[in-house]
Amino acid sequence: MPIVLAANVEHSNVLLALVLMLVAAKVLAEVFERLRQPAVVGEILAGVLLGPSVLAWVQPSDFISLTAEIGVIFLLFNVGLETKPQAILAVGKRAFIVAVLGVIVPFAAGYLIAVLWGGSKIEAMFIGAALVATSVGITARVLSSLGLLDAPTARIILGAAVIDDILGLLILSVVSSFSKGEVNYWSLAGTAGLAIFFTLFVALFGTRLVSRLAPKIENLHISKPFFNAGLILCLGLSFAANYIGVAAIIGAFLAGMALSEATEDNHKMHKMTSGITEFFVPFFLVNIGMQLNLSIFKDVSVIFFAIIITTAAVLTKFIGCGLGALGLGWRRSAQVGIGMVPRGEVGIVVAQIGLGLAVVSEAFFAAVLFMAIATTLIAPPFIKILFAGEEAAREKTDADDAGGIIHETDDWSRIG
Amino acid sequence: MPIVLAANVEHSNVLLALVLMLVAAKVLAEVFERLRQPAVVGEILAGVLLGPSVLAWVQPSDFISLTAEIGVIFLLFNVGLETKPQAILAVGKRAFIVAVLGVIVPFAAGYLIAVLWGGSKIEAMFIGAALVATSVGITARVLSSLGLLDAPTARIILGAAVIDDILGLLILSVVSSFSKGEVNYWSLAGTAGLAIFFTLFVALFGTRLVSRLAPKIENLHISKPFFNAGLILCLGLSFAANYIGVAAIIGAFLAGMALSEATEDNHKMHKMTSGITEFFVPFFLVNIGMQLNLSIFKDVSVIFFAIIITTAAVLTKFIGCGLGALGLGWRRSAQVGIGMVPRGEVGIVVAQIGLGLAVVSEAFFAAVLFMAIATTLIAPPFIKILFAGEEAAREKTDADDAGGIIHETDDWSRIG
Repeated sequence: MPIVLAANVEHSNVLLALVLMLVAAKVLAEVFERLRQPAVVGEILAGVLLGPSVLAWVQPSDFISLTAEIGVIFLLFNVGLETKPQAILAVGKRAFIVAVLGVIVPFAAGYLIAVLWGGSKIEAMFIGAALVATSVGITARVLSSLGLLDAPTARIILGAAVIDDILGLLILSVVSSFSKGEVNYWSLAGTAGLAIFFTLFVALFGTRLVSRLAPKIENLHISKPFFNAGLILCLGLSFAANYIGVAAIIGAFLAGMALSEATEDNHKMHKMTSGITEFFVPFFLVNIGMQLNLSIFKDVSVIFFAIIITTAAVLTKFIGCGLGALGLGWRRSAQVGIGMVPRGEVGIVVAQIGLGLAVVSEAFFAAVLFMAIATTLIAPPFIKILFAGEEAAREKTDADDAGGIIHETDDWSRIG
Repeated sequence: MPIVLAANVEHSNVLLALVLMLVAAKVLAEVFERLRQPAVVGEILAGVLLGPSVLAWVQPSDFISLTAEIGVIFLLFNVGLETKPQAILAVGKRAFIVAVLGVIVPFAAGYLIAVLWGGSKIEAMFIGAALVATSVGITARVLSSLGLLDAPTARIILGAAVIDDILGLLILSVVSSFSKGEVNYWSLAGTAGLAIFFTLFVALFGTRLVSRLAPKIENLHISKPFFNAGLILCLGLSFAANYIGVAAIIGAFLAGMALSEATEDNHKMHKMTSGITEFFVPFFLVNIGMQLNLSIFKDVSVIFFAIIITTAAVLTKFIGCGLGALGLGWRRSAQVGIGMVPRGEVGIVVAQIGLGLAVVSEAFFAAVLFMAIATTLIAPPFIKILFAGEEAAREKTDADDAGGIIHETDDWSRIG
């Protein structure tokens, strides 16, 4: 009946998809909250439900994947706003060890399993590489909802995730080169150098540059100048990071950190960006779930392989990263280990590249896809349990603060 | 050099486009603010600059047009949050007269000019229809940045824009039917009935439904339940409006109005959505400018026709709507008239439909495109000048408030 609808059919479809995703995400988040489980798990399952696996009401599309990307960019930007560079640099050495062990152990395990399962060496390397990169968005979301982003282990996780992403980029570069039969070491060194330079430069000098520019920005005539400058920095560094080859969210996180010390403006900006984040993050989570296509598991052997690779993915990060943080005691080492478990979209991208280069088979790709989504579902409940102590301490501190007594949570900042 | 870039080239390109649009918008907004001109004009010109007409750095795309649509949806949602239904209903009769005169006069003028210029009757009807629909986003943005959304003439403009959009839908339906040689009056009546029912239902009962549901929403376990419910309502009604055939922004505006009385939650929500709006609106404005393609003006006669149709577009809305508001005195009638001038994306959509039906020629389409963008550039400076008195009064009131004395700006609410 609506005669003029034609011109806006596409907009209409997209609006419907967004509404469905938002409603499904919030309904399942509510269910999971009531079951005292993390809301993120519900929101990812909402994607499984809406996506091709079950109802097929919403199809994955470029628009949705871009919306999801903007969601995780703002999520990490907000996390960055709450993270002072010193806090990360202070745990730098520990984060580095965690990242390195969290790269070596999963890569070796993935490689071995794939070879034993009959994969080629190149294929096995891709499976190993897909197990490497932690998707810190999920962990950040869970810790943020618990109000625990400034817990010392949270900082180690964030720092390790940044280093992990650079190492993952290098491994993927090497593996991609191998698969093309040509390894250009100069090009690899260039990629590595650029990624490290970019990260260190923003982490070390970003804050200083921002505090020098802040008064000039505040003098601009446009409305909300600092907020707008922050948005530009966030998207600009996300683009730069993506262009260099590391994840866009690393750029967003660094942008947030660079702004984290401009405290007064930061506070206002944080409120405004939190609205953007709240709006967008559900699309990031739902989109992860929507990637799952259960129909690829026609073959029973694929199911077995998927379960094995998922188990390996969970255990190797947990043990590898946990080992790196063992000096902090068992519980904190377990917190770091479990926080590094989610692979999410990063693992999928690696496997997609292998699929695109025709060196990874459909069956192995299906298994990696399953692993990437399963790790995002498995980790959050354990993160919640393992951080329960910190949460209680945090609530106590808050309650004490409200009563006028301020406790310095000094024991946190001494660790690193 | 970045070997793994391939997988994210599209994301990379989109991020770059977003950064360029944001930077260009804010730089030109700053320039225009310093020239004491409305920032929106700078932001639209930023689009002209980046788009195919000048630099061609950013190409119009589905993603950008959807981002722009979300921008104007949140803009009108925010305007709705600041608009109580009674305030609009109180000026309903006046708004209706303004809307009707603002539809008849431009339609008649557009039709006559096109016929005199040698267009067919059907083509002339489309030109007339393209002159009908006010794009209230531009005016709302300017008034909002002046803090004048609750000026009485602002309410008349908002109410008239809603009615105007419904009338525009009907005219477009009739004209489209004519062009296909078949007018189904039942279908037309159905479209009209549905649009009117939807608008009146939400305007009259939305607030009551929301206030009944609000306590239940607040009891949900998810974080920020009221904000999330508001987002769902906003996108849901935008979709519904679009589906019925009226503009999505009408649905967003009605959603905002329905939530406008849940004052306490509204206040929190308003802060969070204002971040989303601030982020997205520049893309809406830049996207308008990007539609312009100056290369279509190869023919001098097209330039002449474009100038004539633009002049007619400005004068007929200004006079037609101004006449409808004449009872309020000259200055306020001029405020209403100029506020209804911008056509923006609505006029473009109408002309595109005509082009798609092969009844509107390329030359006429080019002229309408020019008119749609030119009216969004011409109106804002005059809006600023004509509302200068209200702005001064508002600033005085604010200053007095700050001094502890509260003046009821009662004279405003008595008008309607």
